[in-house]
Amino acid sequence: MDTLERALEAYAAVLEPALGASLPEPIGQLARLHEAMRYSVMGGGKRIRPAFCFAACEAVGGDLPQAVPAAVALELVHTYSLVHDDLPCMDDDDLRRGRPTNHKVYGDALAVLAGDALLTRAFGVLAGADGDSSRRVAQITALAEAAGSLGMVGGQALDLFAEGSEGVDLPTLQYIHTHKTGALFGASCRLGGLAGGVDADGAERLARFGALIGLAFQIADDLLDETGDPAELGKAAGKDRSRGKATYPRLLGLDESRRRMEELDRKAEEIATDFGPRAETLVRLARFVIRRNR
Amino acid sequence: MDTLERALEAYAAVLEPALGASLPEPIGQLARLHEAMRYSVMGGGKRIRPAFCFAACEAVGGDLPQAVPAAVALELVHTYSLVHDDLPCMDDDDLRRGRPTNHKVYGDALAVLAGDALLTRAFGVLAGADGDSSRRVAQITALAEAAGSLGMVGGQALDLFAEGSEGVDLPTLQYIHTHKTGALFGASCRLGGLAGGVDADGAERLARFGALIGLAFQIADDLLDETGDPAELGKAAGKDRSRGKATYPRLLGLDESRRRMEELDRKAEEIATDFGPRAETLVRLARFVIRRNR
Repeated sequence: MDTLERALEAYAAVLEPALGASLPEPIGQLARLHEAMRYSVMGGGKRIRPAFCFAACEAVGGDLPQAVPAAVALELVHTYSLVHDDLPCMDDDDLRRGRPTNHKVYGDALAVLAGDALLTRAFGVLAGADGDSSRRVAQITALAEAAGSLGMVGGQALDLFAEGSEGVDLPTLQYIHTHKTGALFGASCRLGGLAGGVDADGAERLARFGALIGLAFQIADDLLDETGDPAELGKAAGKDRSRGKATYPRLLGLDESRRRMEELDRKAEEIATDFGPRAETLVRLARFVIRRNR
Repeated sequence: MDTLERALEAYAAVLEPALGASLPEPIGQLARLHEAMRYSVMGGGKRIRPAFCFAACEAVGGDLPQAVPAAVALELVHTYSLVHDDLPCMDDDDLRRGRPTNHKVYGDALAVLAGDALLTRAFGVLAGADGDSSRRVAQITALAEAAGSLGMVGGQALDLFAEGSEGVDLPTLQYIHTHKTGALFGASCRLGGLAGGVDADGAERLARFGALIGLAFQIADDLLDETGDPAELGKAAGKDRSRGKATYPRLLGLDESRRRMEELDRKAEEIATDFGPRAETLVRLARFVIRRNR
């Protein structure tokens, strides 16, 4: 087992129980709503955003337990966004992480509500954490910005507008990826750093690191959609292509897309390296994002 | 102009500009998403939850400006819940406040995203406010609880399960109303009190006051659906009845429903009166909720 695998195991050991405990038990009159929430949260995600959050916390000298509420909140926000994105009126996906999507199992209405409840709970988890309240307020502010209409939701909206329309150019595609994926990756690293007690400048650098990696991650996703096999993806390969969606490989070709992805990764690694040896996992995580496509 | 009208004018004078300023301008690539957000927020709501928030703040000796972020956040949460509740997969309503519903104007996908963004922004507004951060954390915690799966979203889920099913009994209906409406009314008064610097016991009493009024408000809504005219409602009268939805008048009759509503109001007024003369607007607001049905 290599260093990164060991770190990811340590992260999972603190994250998974906390994720489960953050959600109400599926009992009583609201059992089905709470089942729907758990179905998507506990559905075998790779927990990449929490991993970046934990690694950022360690990079600034913090301990894992300090970053748990932020890691939980980030995964709840990510999960809600998947549940809503998969809805028939949005991307209309039947399969996610190799299982039927939330609305295929629980119906559209409950999927909307489960997503709403997960998003709401994310802020409750952050606000209800132990520790310095001004730090919590900073985390909530950053998460709300990254997840809101000027961040993730804005990226998703632009993605919708772009769908099917010919002539999505590279700046627009980069804007979509930067907002839809980069913003929450940036917040993951920023919130982890804040949990570990980083100063304002360090928080900015971590957010910049995360945003670069988020864009690289999305290019890797585009590449996987072109070249990956469905088992690895947990969804149908070539789906973006068959929908006529703009992707990096479609606009730039495979080689140039890989080159840009690696350039983003290199820039990100430079930032991470500045944090010294404690940032080792952060650097390894950045490389892992790229490796997914090898 | 009576005392309540003057208070409501003073509230509107601080709330409306703050609501507008809390939302991004509808310009640039994301113009349509931000238009969709503004369409529902600035769509002529009665601002009842903010009014209770302001009145609760005044009842404990606070000044209006202190309660503005909470009042804005509450109205954003209320608005998002309307946008999502109106969706075709939910209540499927075409008309809201006398205008086409959000998804009729902007489409289902953008209505989902606009709702998501409004909910997210609510927490951003609270977290980004001035003042004591431990107070802001308490407000965010309370709002997340009231709006989440054990509060408003849970009530909406139960309402969905109950729809069309025969035999919704009074305890279930009360549970739905208490969660779907009472929870956010309770939070409105609690957040207003917290903004004004109330202690823990006072916050609890204000939340209890709000929960009672929220239930009374919902019974008043049920009564309006039976007896009101569409112009006053801003939506089709008799819609709940024609859908076979359980309502207080259907389960208890008009007279007994009115009696219970007035009893709730009386209990609430007792709590408000304990706060002394500064709670005058709070008491008048409680009566106003009942009067809507006269």
